[in-house]
Amino acid sequence: MVVDRNVCNGYTAGMSDVFTIPRIAPVEQTLVPSARRIWDSKAKPQLSLGRLEDLAVKIACIRNELNPVLERPMLLLAAADHGVVAQGVTGSPQEITMQQCINFSRGGGAIGLMCAGNGIDLEVVDVGVAADFDPHEQIMDRKIARGTADMTTGPAMTASECHQALAVGTERVSTYARSGKNVVAFGEMGVGNTTAASALMASYTGCPVSLCTGQGSGMDAAGLAHKRAVVDRALRLHHGQSDPIEVLRRLGGLEIACIAGGMLEAASRRMVVLVDGFICTAALLAASRMEPAVLDYVVFCHESREAGHRLLIELLGGSPLLRLGMCLGEGTGAALGWLVVRQAVDLYNTMTSFERGGVTDSVSLLKARGIDRAAIH
Amino acid sequence: MVVDRNVCNGYTAGMSDVFTIPRIAPVEQTLVPSARRIWDSKAKPQLSLGRLEDLAVKIACIRNELNPVLERPMLLLAAADHGVVAQGVTGSPQEITMQQCINFSRGGGAIGLMCAGNGIDLEVVDVGVAADFDPHEQIMDRKIARGTADMTTGPAMTASECHQALAVGTERVSTYARSGKNVVAFGEMGVGNTTAASALMASYTGCPVSLCTGQGSGMDAAGLAHKRAVVDRALRLHHGQSDPIEVLRRLGGLEIACIAGGMLEAASRRMVVLVDGFICTAALLAASRMEPAVLDYVVFCHESREAGHRLLIELLGGSPLLRLGMCLGEGTGAALGWLVVRQAVDLYNTMTSFERGGVTDSVSLLKARGIDRAAIH
Repeated sequence: MVVDRNVCNGYTAGMSDVFTIPRIAPVEQTLVPSARRIWDSKAKPQLSLGRLEDLAVKIACIRNELNPVLERPMLLLAAADHGVVAQGVTGSPQEITMQQCINFSRGGGAIGLMCAGNGIDLEVVDVGVAADFDPHEQIMDRKIARGTADMTTGPAMTASECHQALAVGTERVSTYARSGKNVVAFGEMGVGNTTAASALMASYTGCPVSLCTGQGSGMDAAGLAHKRAVVDRALRLHHGQSDPIEVLRRLGGLEIACIAGGMLEAASRRMVVLVDGFICTAALLAASRMEPAVLDYVVFCHESREAGHRLLIELLGGSPLLRLGMCLGEGTGAALGWLVVRQAVDLYNTMTSFERGGVTDSVSLLKARGIDRAAIH
Repeated sequence: MVVDRNVCNGYTAGMSDVFTIPRIAPVEQTLVPSARRIWDSKAKPQLSLGRLEDLAVKIACIRNELNPVLERPMLLLAAADHGVVAQGVTGSPQEITMQQCINFSRGGGAIGLMCAGNGIDLEVVDVGVAADFDPHEQIMDRKIARGTADMTTGPAMTASECHQALAVGTERVSTYARSGKNVVAFGEMGVGNTTAASALMASYTGCPVSLCTGQGSGMDAAGLAHKRAVVDRALRLHHGQSDPIEVLRRLGGLEIACIAGGMLEAASRRMVVLVDGFICTAALLAASRMEPAVLDYVVFCHESREAGHRLLIELLGGSPLLRLGMCLGEGTGAALGWLVVRQAVDLYNTMTSFERGGVTDSVSLLKARGIDRAAIH
């Protein structure tokens, strides 16, 4: 497969090509005791809402507000193509990237429907799709290149391209923040991008390629073995890099860089970051190598069936909210996770207390009997 | 603790005290291939929506409609008290049962808020609360007794009480069905009911009491050891029963019997049954011993943190949709699971096909390359 790839100077005019890593303050834990006390005053046994309680406490801390009010999230769906598809690493034709962007932006596809149904605003951002969109389509044009270069023959991106892609994430998230958003979800579309994500995971973490590389959108055993060999080849070509942006530039994708930049910006603004599947988690991995404090601001929404995702979440110290066996990307895991996050914060903010609900406070009773929080939790 | 308990003949006048197990046809699998084909025609990689795909296929089969339309669910929250609280098996005062019923019926408490927020109708049914409600409260009066008797000194229910409670479930679910409902969730409120559920699990399954008995709404290690000893005592007193209704009558609760009856009726009417936590699953266990086909109609929504629930779901051949560490009951797990069920069916019914979405059909492409469904799934 020959991939047509030209840098699109026309589109990038005026875009910043120097990305500055935003400063991110670690999330302070000072509100934790007060937030826990709010939960404990609710008309329910202590800690009985499990992870919903932890989630709401975390979000109070992220927002640094004892009663955080979350706005409708924005889902930034970054789309780009990948030169590595020339190596036959996927069964999907490259034009699916472009076609699905149109489908999503018109409210179709899984993520289009999920966003519409779950109170999420969706913005499809073209950072590197290898095709031109009709300007009438509702797609944000931030095209930097017509796909990346093939990482098995050279770096996927030039330094300028990688910085620009990171900066697009910054710019979009800043815009969302200015419009009042305080929750941002990330999704992606890019045929071939599980290969890039696997290479990033293997390179950043040192885990064996076999643990980092899965079937993507559908591969038989022979296809998977070939894909692993391709990732292996890319890693050998680009080995020995320690600078996180350099690793990202060599093995990543334009949409992955955009998401990494967006996550960093979101964390720097104390926004809640909803993390989707394998590719978005690889973007988070890249971001966390630039600024580890970004991890304080994320919710791992769904563990994908894609091989490597479970391990990657673990390595990042997370634990997924949902495990529904999806492996679609697009932001679908984040869109479902939002339902749980919203529920947690709603209950935290509005559930009746023992006193107001006229319910006897069994908490005090239990405490009087010496029952320990740790024993319950 | 002395439990005041009198049979309330006044309330039960006119109620059926002979329960007939409804006939349940096993769910036919004839629609499975057509339903799978519908998923495979969608603009996404095959099987990439994981459990959402399985869910929608299951629901098409339950409803025996290729494009099932699910109405707003009804959540039957059955409430009753338990004589076994006299043995000191819980840290919660018994009046919490009554107080929480009022709280829920006014839209408060976790389940009141979750139902209001997630498009679920809630009916609180008093089958055996040990207190009188003001008739102005929005609580369905089906009181059979003021709580069960203490199962450590005799059967928890008389045969008539147990049959009446089962019949209340039948009656309520029939009413929902007649009003057009086709999804029914179950929840419960009853201080002491994890003890009854543990005893039922141990008796029906033969599993050791230690695996069936957990901390309920909060217990320290000594309290848990005591609770296990109480369950053990009840089992010894009532050992050797093989009739499932007889086991239920001796060890169960009025709300548990009501839920079991409701589940059987729902399945007999091809309704989708949303199963909540440990107590509702114990009710399902009882129902499944009366008529195993009931299991075809259920969705295990959430695996509770309560010890025994994971094992019980496994023994029933299920796998929970969610694991959020909750252990609150009330129907909260079912109310969250509904969000996933609804999403699955919505996507199944409305997601664009490759053709309509203008997206190249990579499925045919993959098939042409000999990629096997089983290899992906």
